[in-house]
Amino acid sequence: MYHHSGITGRLLILCPDRPGIVAGVSQYLYTLGANILDASQHSTDPREGLFFMRMEFQLEGCEITVQQLEASFQEQVAGPLQMEWRIDYIHRRKRMAIMVSKYDHCLMELLWRWRSGELEADIPFIISNHPDLQKITMDFDIPFHYLPVNPADKKAQEAEVIRLMHSHQTDFIVLARYMQILSPAFVSTFPGRIINIHHSFLPAFAGARPYLNAYNRGVKLIGATAHYVTNELDEGPIIEQDVARVSHKQSVNDLVMLGRDIERQVLTRAVKAHIDDRVIIHGNKTIVF
Amino acid sequence: MYHHSGITGRLLILCPDRPGIVAGVSQYLYTLGANILDASQHSTDPREGLFFMRMEFQLEGCEITVQQLEASFQEQVAGPLQMEWRIDYIHRRKRMAIMVSKYDHCLMELLWRWRSGELEADIPFIISNHPDLQKITMDFDIPFHYLPVNPADKKAQEAEVIRLMHSHQTDFIVLARYMQILSPAFVSTFPGRIINIHHSFLPAFAGARPYLNAYNRGVKLIGATAHYVTNELDEGPIIEQDVARVSHKQSVNDLVMLGRDIERQVLTRAVKAHIDDRVIIHGNKTIVF
Amino acid sequence: MYHHSGITGRLLILCPDRPGIVAGVSQYLYTLGANILDASQHSTDPREGLFFMRMEFQLEGCEITVQQLEASFQEQVAGPLQMEWRIDYIHRRKRMAIMVSKYDHCLMELLWRWRSGELEADIPFIISNHPDLQKITMDFDIPFHYLPVNPADKKAQEAEVIRLMHSHQTDFIVLARYMQILSPAFVSTFPGRIINIHHSFLPAFAGARPYLNAYNRGVKLIGATAHYVTNELDEGPIIEQDVARVSHKQSVNDLVMLGRDIERQVLTRAVKAHIDDRVIIHGNKTIVF
Amino acid sequence: MYHHSGITGRLLILCPDRPGIVAGVSQYLYTLGANILDASQHSTDPREGLFFMRMEFQLEGCEITVQQLEASFQEQVAGPLQMEWRIDYIHRRKRMAIMVSKYDHCLMELLWRWRSGELEADIPFIISNHPDLQKITMDFDIPFHYLPVNPADKKAQEAEVIRLMHSHQTDFIVLARYMQILSPAFVSTFPGRIINIHHSFLPAFAGARPYLNAYNRGVKLIGATAHYVTNELDEGPIIEQDVARVSHKQSVNDLVMLGRDIERQVLTRAVKAHIDDRVIIHGNKTIVF
Repeated sequence: MYHHSGITGRLLILCPDRPGIVAGVSQYLYTLGANILDASQHSTDPREGLFFMRMEFQLEGCEITVQQLEASFQEQVAGPLQMEWRIDYIHRRKRMAIMVSKYDHCLMELLWRWRSGELEADIPFIISNHPDLQKITMDFDIPFHYLPVNPADKKAQEAEVIRLMHSHQTDFIVLARYMQILSPAFVSTFPGRIINIHHSFLPAFAGARPYLNAYNRGVKLIGATAHYVTNELDEGPIIEQDVARVSHKQSVNDLVMLGRDIERQVLTRAVKAHIDDRVIIHGNKTIVF
Repeated sequence: MYHHSGITGRLLILCPDRPGIVAGVSQYLYTLGANILDASQHSTDPREGLFFMRMEFQLEGCEITVQQLEASFQEQVAGPLQMEWRIDYIHRRKRMAIMVSKYDHCLMELLWRWRSGELEADIPFIISNHPDLQKITMDFDIPFHYLPVNPADKKAQEAEVIRLMHSHQTDFIVLARYMQILSPAFVSTFPGRIINIHHSFLPAFAGARPYLNAYNRGVKLIGATAHYVTNELDEGPIIEQDVARVSHKQSVNDLVMLGRDIERQVLTRAVKAHIDDRVIIHGNKTIVF
Repeated sequence: MYHHSGITGRLLILCPDRPGIVAGVSQYLYTLGANILDASQHSTDPREGLFFMRMEFQLEGCEITVQQLEASFQEQVAGPLQMEWRIDYIHRRKRMAIMVSKYDHCLMELLWRWRSGELEADIPFIISNHPDLQKITMDFDIPFHYLPVNPADKKAQEAEVIRLMHSHQTDFIVLARYMQILSPAFVSTFPGRIINIHHSFLPAFAGARPYLNAYNRGVKLIGATAHYVTNELDEGPIIEQDVARVSHKQSVNDLVMLGRDIERQVLTRAVKAHIDDRVIIHGNKTIVF
Repeated sequence: MYHHSGITGRLLILCPDRPGIVAGVSQYLYTLGANILDASQHSTDPREGLFFMRMEFQLEGCEITVQQLEASFQEQVAGPLQMEWRIDYIHRRKRMAIMVSKYDHCLMELLWRWRSGELEADIPFIISNHPDLQKITMDFDIPFHYLPVNPADKKAQEAEVIRLMHSHQTDFIVLARYMQILSPAFVSTFPGRIINIHHSFLPAFAGARPYLNAYNRGVKLIGATAHYVTNELDEGPIIEQDVARVSHKQSVNDLVMLGRDIERQVLTRAVKAHIDDRVIIHGNKTIVF
């Protein structure tokens, strides 16, 4: 929350629950001279017996390299405690690609928050299967790649997206109302690294036309869901959800209009959590610290 | 909202949309000398072309009987405009039966609000298939009928419930976490007159064990739904819904505990809307004025 | 909610409560051949005895002019019933000026919703006392007037704003985080026609630095308030408010960042209500239908 | 969240921020053989430089007494790190006195949640300055002391409350809409140990008649605030707040009725946080973990 100079790392841990984990990690960081800025932990039901932790730490004036830090952490702490772990560093800003079709609201919200400094990531490019939104992105000085989808050969376009991702060292993809279903091969290329916004309160109204289905069912709340994309359509781990109240007064078009506000909020909160290394995926669920 | 002496009626109307409906009804009431206390209307999509209205009116010092009022309204207004309609009168308090099993939270909330004057209805009796909750209802001086369900012959118990309903001129039933599925014959006996609370944000997690299913899916909001009971299980017209935020921190038991608060609020809001004649059922949806 | 051809008017009424108002108005409109699309009414406490109504109606294929309509309504209905009233017509789009300083979030939200069709008004110009936001408004093709404020002579700038307002037949002003206090003379020029967003949940934390004051008080919710500007600073009639949950974790800067989202939502909802003729000002309060 | 046998303690810490705190505490607990069940921490702005932590730990099959544990913790960890700290143990259930006047809603909510197991405390007695609520507490088998207040000598009644508190080893007091202002001497007897519910969204509408004042100001949200009582009326550290949406439709009585639901929720959430040792008071603010 406050500015610190030096290297700031965010350690994410998943391991079997047992005494000594917090002591082991915090003692290791203390020996290095690191200050713990923030820490959150979660233990699951004893039958499952898992421990999750996020620890944000700061190293000032330390001679150790990132490689040395990670090697010694693995040897001294993570190995003995059977941890799955990673450390991300705030000086290495994440690189986020955005994919859109024709709807502008999620894209504009992401770009506005990015420009205002809320999303601390770089955006190497925007990809769309339609040219419509190119004009509004110009003000933000971000390359816009119009890559139409040939229904007879979707793989060609996906191959080009993958090439762009790799050539720009991009870390993750945000589907900001991208109206195409991605192939299993594509999804498998970026596991846990594609965030989608679905315009319903999943698992209700999965699939197409959720606002129409919500209208027909007569629900009193509509919602939106941000989740990681897996090869089970609309079934990936949920990062964030929210809802808004509706009544008989709203037409389907009103639901669409109102839903845009929820989609914008939910998607940007999920993207921010991902950028700030607050999400651990475990099975088909998330821990969001 | 304010107290008025005299006869206060609530007119609910459903008819084909066309010019002159508001004029016709309000002119009729004005001629009688009635004052319109509150009015709400709703027109559907022109393709469907329906008009719904709720009008609360007050007649002071009027010589007309309720029978005369309704007959002349049918002849002069409702007939020519092809209305489905009814008038309820606040001096005829609705009579509400409550059915419960072992959970006390929805029952207690209903009884507390009833005693505090928020629910302007009479409660001729409470029915349960278990004896557990009898003690806590004693303080409220409401008869408690313990009617166990014989799995081999559910109809006998339902027949007794129907008998009690009729013999006490009961208007509608609230299932305050009543853990039995009612037979089609029973449901058909009280169309649009049985209100149930389902402990999920329908249509998500319909059926049994919604909190466990919500936990397993990793949703970030849990909810509850009050709806009229039809013979399509968990598919009846929704009256009210609400949600609460959850995270990975909550166990299934925590969801159950948190869900109780949503269930209490949602069910009592739905019951209050029903008692106050704010609900019109149309197909599988509700208009809640 | 649905599209209709012909003239669509929105009638707003304030008058002493008495029987026959709804009948009188609806009968008048019916005689003209108008269809009532939507109607809302509100009666105050009998001691105050006031009646408020909004009625949206549609005239198709009618020979009457707007002038004739209003003259005959005054003579036949409004005069006898002592009404204060006005009719606005959706074919006469309201003209909305926006005044900003350096913060872009409220401005961007208004412009994005305007371009998406949610705000059915025209924006003849944007005025700012700083040049900073000119660039981001270019994409929207709206004239941007940089009118700096000379602290020694604030009246000169206000006079120029008034001149622009009049020369462009502008209906109302939105202060989208305009960081200047307007003079009583200026405010009196546009009574009930200046909408401001205050970055607190008024009446809490009126005046300057509300986020700092909220932080220091340790509140658990922060809010924003949209209100009409009067010459009592931060005391004008409230149109809309909302809040967001905070905790000890948020710094003052975090509150500022989070508050931006509430300000955007609250201001745009208030502006939309004003544009759609849903607000009646009565004393220092509003009726928002 | 899950059941554990053995001694479970909740350690609350406030100390100057510096590296090594988490390591020191967790290493100490690990050496004892304790398992850390949950941990939360908060660091303030570096200018203030304070560190707050709540750590819930479990000791199984440990020979150490609570006295030995606390003495060695003070010597080895808390002393060197200049900590203010305390440990509460879940086997020592807190003892909570409730004070009421005539309103039943907050009292009933506390008692219902207490009976359902949500509030893990003992309630040695209820005190009221009116006899009205005695009947409804009978079902809960809790002694009810009717202690009327003599306006000419308020101290006599307060002295009797203090005597009861001490003779029953009561830990804290909940003012569940107790309509008396407590004397400075009384408040000073229980610092940080009296929780009050104020029926407004403080600091708005402090003092008496908040619903009337909210109505007169025309706010669009009403709220409630649970706070610790200090000798600055309505100015003590806020534990929890919430709001509900209102409009011009609600009369003052409607606000009172709607407000009851917020008061019930806010007070019980605050009481639960206090019972579960989640609150640290710092100056006039709270950290609620």
